[in-house]
Amino acid sequence: MSQNKKMVEAITPINEDFTQWYTDICLKAELVDYSTVKGCMILRPYGYAIWENIMHLLDKRFKETGHENVAMPMFIPESLLQKEKDHVEGFAPEVAWVTMGGSEPLEDRLCVRPTSETLFCDHFAHVLHSYRELPMKYNQWCSVVRWEKTTRPFLRTREFWWQEGHTIHETAEEAIAETEMMLNIYADFCEHQLNIPVIRGKKTDKEKFAGAEATYTIEAMMHDGKALQSGTSHYFGDGFSRAFGVQFSGRDNTLQYPFQTSWGVTTRLIGAIIMTHGDDEGLILPPAIAPYQVVIVPVAAHKPGVLEKAEELRARLSKFVRVKLDDSENSPGWKFAQWEMKGVPLRLEIGPKDIEKDQCVLVRRDNREKTFVSLNDLETAIPELLDTLAAAIFARAQENRENRTWACTTMDEILEHANGENGYIKTMWCGELACEEAMKEKAGLSSRCMPFAQESLSDVCPICGKPAKKMVIWGKAY
Amino acid sequence: MSQNKKMVEAITPINEDFTQWYTDICLKAELVDYSTVKGCMILRPYGYAIWENIMHLLDKRFKETGHENVAMPMFIPESLLQKEKDHVEGFAPEVAWVTMGGSEPLEDRLCVRPTSETLFCDHFAHVLHSYRELPMKYNQWCSVVRWEKTTRPFLRTREFWWQEGHTIHETAEEAIAETEMMLNIYADFCEHQLNIPVIRGKKTDKEKFAGAEATYTIEAMMHDGKALQSGTSHYFGDGFSRAFGVQFSGRDNTLQYPFQTSWGVTTRLIGAIIMTHGDDEGLILPPAIAPYQVVIVPVAAHKPGVLEKAEELRARLSKFVRVKLDDSENSPGWKFAQWEMKGVPLRLEIGPKDIEKDQCVLVRRDNREKTFVSLNDLETAIPELLDTLAAAIFARAQENRENRTWACTTMDEILEHANGENGYIKTMWCGELACEEAMKEKAGLSSRCMPFAQESLSDVCPICGKPAKKMVIWGKAY
Repeated sequence: MSQNKKMVEAITPINEDFTQWYTDICLKAELVDYSTVKGCMILRPYGYAIWENIMHLLDKRFKETGHENVAMPMFIPESLLQKEKDHVEGFAPEVAWVTMGGSEPLEDRLCVRPTSETLFCDHFAHVLHSYRELPMKYNQWCSVVRWEKTTRPFLRTREFWWQEGHTIHETAEEAIAETEMMLNIYADFCEHQLNIPVIRGKKTDKEKFAGAEATYTIEAMMHDGKALQSGTSHYFGDGFSRAFGVQFSGRDNTLQYPFQTSWGVTTRLIGAIIMTHGDDEGLILPPAIAPYQVVIVPVAAHKPGVLEKAEELRARLSKFVRVKLDDSENSPGWKFAQWEMKGVPLRLEIGPKDIEKDQCVLVRRDNREKTFVSLNDLETAIPELLDTLAAAIFARAQENRENRTWACTTMDEILEHANGENGYIKTMWCGELACEEAMKEKAGLSSRCMPFAQESLSDVCPICGKPAKKMVIWGKAY
Repeated sequence: MSQNKKMVEAITPINEDFTQWYTDICLKAELVDYSTVKGCMILRPYGYAIWENIMHLLDKRFKETGHENVAMPMFIPESLLQKEKDHVEGFAPEVAWVTMGGSEPLEDRLCVRPTSETLFCDHFAHVLHSYRELPMKYNQWCSVVRWEKTTRPFLRTREFWWQEGHTIHETAEEAIAETEMMLNIYADFCEHQLNIPVIRGKKTDKEKFAGAEATYTIEAMMHDGKALQSGTSHYFGDGFSRAFGVQFSGRDNTLQYPFQTSWGVTTRLIGAIIMTHGDDEGLILPPAIAPYQVVIVPVAAHKPGVLEKAEELRARLSKFVRVKLDDSENSPGWKFAQWEMKGVPLRLEIGPKDIEKDQCVLVRRDNREKTFVSLNDLETAIPELLDTLAAAIFARAQENRENRTWACTTMDEILEHANGENGYIKTMWCGELACEEAMKEKAGLSSRCMPFAQESLSDVCPICGKPAKKMVIWGKAY
């Protein structure tokens, strides 16, 4: 028990220092290690297993909607990056430059891809000929590099892992439909598989992706009320196609430019999981992506028959859940603390008395609720409890968001909330960059998005008093 | 039919110009595209789907043998690379150097990883404490960069995709057993899933990996008699552990250095598949990794009921094979040629007359053998035919290897064969570097390996006449 206590004490309480609590979890749940390469992280087996589950579930959704995976080079020649003006301005200041190959200086230096629109366009220009080949719907899983100054595991690192979808279409309508479909896939994935409620909306021009006509986003709220942009989907019109000379011969035999999209989510989603669901005991993992959904902890494991029964249950449960039997020599108390830290959704305890009664104890990670379950009922009880837990952590996150969302119609109201607890501030907006900049300057808030679900809070922009065009959600963001 | 013919004519015959034939297949089967980044390739959907299948099958084998996936940074600080002397000498001349982050020059320049021993050692030094944590058996799937001068798709590119396993163990015996186990997994995978016969053996000191105590290899022979190193597994002893200060407290409470391995296979395996199995019509894919194992081509698709039947079969077959229905508007002849080019193992033809008789035609890609099969029997006939094809292409490759392997006991014999057709030359060897270099100089041959299955061809080294220590296989290699 002393070991158990020690382990729990080692985490900073969530409401005492959220930043330190977050770092503690990243390290103590063995998700990441810092590396010698400044600003880069190492994904350890438990962290990578979460990412593998995320990749697996999303990849299935991408393929079901007709996307194919490809692999592009990790380098972009400087001359290629410069072809689209807004894009190069957005990314050039934050890329890593390869200037030497072996001992030879390169003529055209190469940046390590921060994103791959330019490479995909270059490829599309090679392989596209006719409208019959459209749409081309590609995706790649890889890592990209952005030379950030301040870094934190999962949230902002110089290298991070992601997927980037890149598609081209015959018409603008189809490309816009694709952009929206992918945003909806992200939102559905976040809500139903990561159990994180998100707001779907459009970014303001100031916040949109470098080179995009429109950027759609899903915004999540973390436990501390800060916002986390969790996935984006961009519509490019035919801007990149024109810049890169991507053309096809159309139904009417004229040469045309295709319309383009890109969309991505990153390992940042793991940061969102930690900061949405975690508590003082550590991580709480959504069942859909938990490396282990159930951990079996034998109690009084030295007593005859206990380990055998535990192993029998492990083999049986492995047919329908991801299960781990902890048969190490640590005490049950230590194991409880360790697997709570690692966020395993359900703990199954089994000891001599349980075996006598042909039952076991199931303990939910989120609220520690214990249920005695007949061993005959595990095939129904475990999936039910996992579903219940998933719904409960979603509801808890939603409640947190509702409690921390304030509709404001005057600057005074805005400032009052901006100076208080973190959260979302909803206001009307005139659409002018000046007002967006004023919000940053006066209230320290950035626009998260113009939600698809618009409301009418008042007729005027509370910043300038001019007629309002859109409702915007503002917040402090990671 | 003219389109069909045109497509076939566009490939260089395999025995006319093997190099051009290879390039033609890479492009016309739509496996790769050249990229603007010199020496780097793009894996197109069909090529990447093959790699996905390879990854999936190998990853399963790695996990079944207790390995866990992780992700390391793609950069290695120069100071870290320099810690192991042989390693840095082997790799430094062929790495890409990042010297700028944004607009700032870096103090310690970073190389893009050519391989990650140094990063793993650095991480092991952080996380390893006790013998109880051993073995640590890690793997990562990623791309690496080596600044090659001459490049060819899959065989040698500046960036390539691979997996690299890195493990540390309490004892040398365990590490050696791991090295051997992984080589055997590679060999078994090549032989049973890629249907490529391989020779298992140990590299000479000259050919071993920079920094390794021993390198084990699997060597395949291509259609043209040249050798392709297809996978390697390295034993490091405790050399890297000592260089990087990786230590653990042992069973006797003393600080000890763990023993280490690494092992990898790359997208080069796709090159091996092409050059082992392909023919004048294009690719022939091993069923285990073919993106589509069966392609359904409707004949007289405009006749009532044909497309419906084809779709019904597709749905049925998709339950037990990877199947594609080609319902495009191209002619059957064009489709036949296209899917032969892409190497789909089985073609299923179905037309009005077949439907009347409740049958279809199955055509094997390797020998074009046609079988009329009752529609009731597809669930057994298709898996059987796929197995038969897999065995047949393996046997054909094995026969090619046997026909092109010559045991030589004199330098005259060696030179006679070295100047004739490509193939493996088996000789005894004294073990001296000088003789290995003489073989290169005089006969243009490099040592492929000292096979585990040793034979005694004579008592002396045919190069120097001194007593022989080992039998070596020599060849010209990709």
